[in-house]
Amino acid sequence: MSAALKEAARKATITTPTDREIRVERVFDAPRERVWQAFTEPKLVAQWWGRGNKLVVERMEVERGGHWRFVEHGPDGVHGFEGRYREVTPPTRLVHTFEWDGMPGYVAIETIILEDAGNGRTRVINTSLFHATEERDGMLSSGMEMGLNESYAALDRLLATRG
Amino acid sequence: MSAALKEAARKATITTPTDREIRVERVFDAPRERVWQAFTEPKLVAQWWGRGNKLVVERMEVERGGHWRFVEHGPDGVHGFEGRYREVTPPTRLVHTFEWDGMPGYVAIETIILEDAGNGRTRVINTSLFHATEERDGMLSSGMEMGLNESYAALDRLLATRG
Repeated sequence: MSAALKEAARKATITTPTDREIRVERVFDAPRERVWQAFTEPKLVAQWWGRGNKLVVERMEVERGGHWRFVEHGPDGVHGFEGRYREVTPPTRLVHTFEWDGMPGYVAIETIILEDAGNGRTRVINTSLFHATEERDGMLSSGMEMGLNESYAALDRLLATRG
Repeated sequence: MSAALKEAARKATITTPTDREIRVERVFDAPRERVWQAFTEPKLVAQWWGRGNKLVVERMEVERGGHWRFVEHGPDGVHGFEGRYREVTPPTRLVHTFEWDGMPGYVAIETIILEDAGNGRTRVINTSLFHATEERDGMLSSGMEMGLNESYAALDRLLATRG
């Protein structure tokens, strides 16, 4: 694939399919099994989820009913995130709750779907469902898009080193 | 108050104000401060929340961002429930998330409002908001109404002994 095509494939597409959802689609240059590992193995998650910042994976029980808790140590402070796994179906589907310590009790449901995109690539579709439109809009205006692109760029780097 | 009036006052009213909500209204024969304590002090919660069954309060940090986890030991088995406090405003308003271990990752937001109903009584309005109508309907058909009435009857008994 040309460099231009690779670049295009790596652009995340953010849409709002309903008034309580955010949908993010992104293609990664690695096979599905390897992308699945990067999403579900604590040592790998620690290397990309925090956008290059130090990330402490305090808890990560990847099974239905298990809990997760990540703490990001960034230049703007320490941020905790947590939730619980609702569905774990390797290597295609991961559903969990998502909550930021800064807004405790505001819970989104994150559904992550991994599709084979051909040529050793994987399409990741991440849909977040909120209880209210205002919560969804708060997330959209929080700088989420930049943070997401930074995380996914870090994931690109991780996947490349393990190629 | 006559016995008949007391009985009427104690009947819980369950309605569905929107397609993702359940609203429960119930009057208790005790002043608001005392009802607030019964909802927020672990030793008191243990005496009524489990409907007369043994209830272990594993965690109960009643403050914004705090977590709670109750385990009910009933004749039909052991059931865990948990969540996180979103808003704690004594003695009028308590908002927290609610999740049953049997359906992990399905999270309702429970808003509990305590109103002075006059004559030393308190009106409790408990509204649960779900992510989806099917989740709300699942809760309605789960025997929730009977369980709720049993819990509230246990709370009546607790409030009477502390009168």
